[in-house]
Amino acid sequence: MSTRYIVGIDLGGTNIVTGCVREDGGDFRGERSIPTSAEGGPDVVVQRIIACAEESIAALRAEVPGAEVIGVGCGSPGPLDTRTGVVLLTPNLGWVNMPLRDRLQSGLGIRTALDNDANCAVLGEWWMGAARGTRNAIGLTIGTGIGGGIIIDGRLYHGSTDLAGEIGHMTIEANGRKCKCGNYGCVEAYASGPNIALRAVEAIQTGASSTLPSYVAGDLSLITAQKVYQAAQAGDALAHDVVRDTAHFLGAAVASLINIFNPEAVVIVGGVTLAGDRLFEPLRREVSRRAFKPAVQVCRIVPGELTGVAGVYGAVRAFQEQVEAGIV
Amino acid sequence: MSTRYIVGIDLGGTNIVTGCVREDGGDFRGERSIPTSAEGGPDVVVQRIIACAEESIAALRAEVPGAEVIGVGCGSPGPLDTRTGVVLLTPNLGWVNMPLRDRLQSGLGIRTALDNDANCAVLGEWWMGAARGTRNAIGLTIGTGIGGGIIIDGRLYHGSTDLAGEIGHMTIEANGRKCKCGNYGCVEAYASGPNIALRAVEAIQTGASSTLPSYVAGDLSLITAQKVYQAAQAGDALAHDVVRDTAHFLGAAVASLINIFNPEAVVIVGGVTLAGDRLFEPLRREVSRRAFKPAVQVCRIVPGELTGVAGVYGAVRAFQEQVEAGIV
Repeated sequence: MSTRYIVGIDLGGTNIVTGCVREDGGDFRGERSIPTSAEGGPDVVVQRIIACAEESIAALRAEVPGAEVIGVGCGSPGPLDTRTGVVLLTPNLGWVNMPLRDRLQSGLGIRTALDNDANCAVLGEWWMGAARGTRNAIGLTIGTGIGGGIIIDGRLYHGSTDLAGEIGHMTIEANGRKCKCGNYGCVEAYASGPNIALRAVEAIQTGASSTLPSYVAGDLSLITAQKVYQAAQAGDALAHDVVRDTAHFLGAAVASLINIFNPEAVVIVGGVTLAGDRLFEPLRREVSRRAFKPAVQVCRIVPGELTGVAGVYGAVRAFQEQVEAGIV
Repeated sequence: MSTRYIVGIDLGGTNIVTGCVREDGGDFRGERSIPTSAEGGPDVVVQRIIACAEESIAALRAEVPGAEVIGVGCGSPGPLDTRTGVVLLTPNLGWVNMPLRDRLQSGLGIRTALDNDANCAVLGEWWMGAARGTRNAIGLTIGTGIGGGIIIDGRLYHGSTDLAGEIGHMTIEANGRKCKCGNYGCVEAYASGPNIALRAVEAIQTGASSTLPSYVAGDLSLITAQKVYQAAQAGDALAHDVVRDTAHFLGAAVASLINIFNPEAVVIVGGVTLAGDRLFEPLRREVSRRAFKPAVQVCRIVPGELTGVAGVYGAVRAFQEQVEAGIV
């Protein structure tokens, strides 16, 4: 059994999550999570990442005698350049041209690779989660926005300038809702967490009857996607409709992805999976109605399995990929 | 200079086109085209393909002393199985489970590869046409339907079961026009040749004024996409609007493809390119409005260059790919 481990780092706007994964993916040690504290600026965040990773490494060493740490992978919001390891721009963190890879590599003294956070989450699910064993897989990460990742022939597909995988910004309604990206009708404008909540709020504001206001003491600005799932679970008809419509919008996007990629799996990662079968059953039906049958038949549409740590697993695998590709 | 040539075959519902391409792509000889005569059944079509290819080979030998024919590539309507060389189903030709590759290989006595026709057209444009020199490129073939092809890292992407690239069946209007495939709102339902014509006809039938009826002696069923371009060229306002709307619909699809793939080129192949700048200028503007700027900046959106022979070039390259991959 190998005792070689790689540190995975999942850098988010709110939290940093780190852990150590054995090179074969079969052992995970020292999961740690701390707030990102982005308001402190990049130096503070880098120090916090390093401290968090060092705690994970210490936990590993305590639990696995002789464990060797051979690398570090970090998933970060982007866009970023995997070749130079520079984060070009992160609205959430307020960074511009931040050489995150080299800062972490110097701080930790271990060879480090950098990749996109959504890409890493999907790569993690492909490597050790819900899409394990497939050759081609597509993932959507649904949270504040909708990100994505594309696995082609067992490797992350980055596109020509590391910008591929912006699946949330597929147009599903050419004249539809305005999206934060400037486009109209992106699937993100309908099915991201905040937009799921917003569709419920809009329906209530235009007179739909619902128990949702009672979940937030009447303050509609406090309605979240999670509260919509809770209300749907409890039998609220409006909340049920909002979840069903979410399946309809996501279904249009997933059907297009299946027609384009003919993958063996579409994995959906993030809080939206809390809606469970209430979301996935109408989603699968919508996809079956829309996409080519033979392509649907070979593709499973599944929630992610590595809750909270998909990005950590994926960052580890991204390190391995970049070593194999000679990038780091 | 090599004297090794590969025969390319582009099998369409209406015509068969064949030619011989030098293995480096730099010389094309013996282009021949004959009607497919699909109504004669598969045996007749196979005999016609073989006869047409043999004419191309004879022309090559007459023009290039010492020319050696090392292989045959055939692009066929699908779906088909590249590994077995069997065409599974072709509504246009009426075939089911037709072992086309082996039939051609026996008939011609030369090692033969089979791939999808739209894939081949895009591969041809990537190899020797408008997308030459790129690593990742996407192509749309717009004719009776809208097909597509995906080039990842300089190779055709086939998906898990040879079904990838159905770009015409991306949903751009989740509740939009019914498509022949059964889905609603596919880009094909708006921007294929017949649907371009149909949108013009519908507008005329609901009272729009246009010179288009004079192009067809008042018989609206004779309006084609090409007549719409002619009328637009001649200053007809309705025809102009139909072309501009085509750019709008295609733009939504191409923007999604750029956000998903971050390619260096999107090539559009087929009769629609006859509309020229009248189509491509609003298309590029629409894409710029919709897609991520940094991804748009690295991607050219261009008409195909290998008019009529993109599929032949691509079939030749597909043969080379399948030899490299050990498939044939």
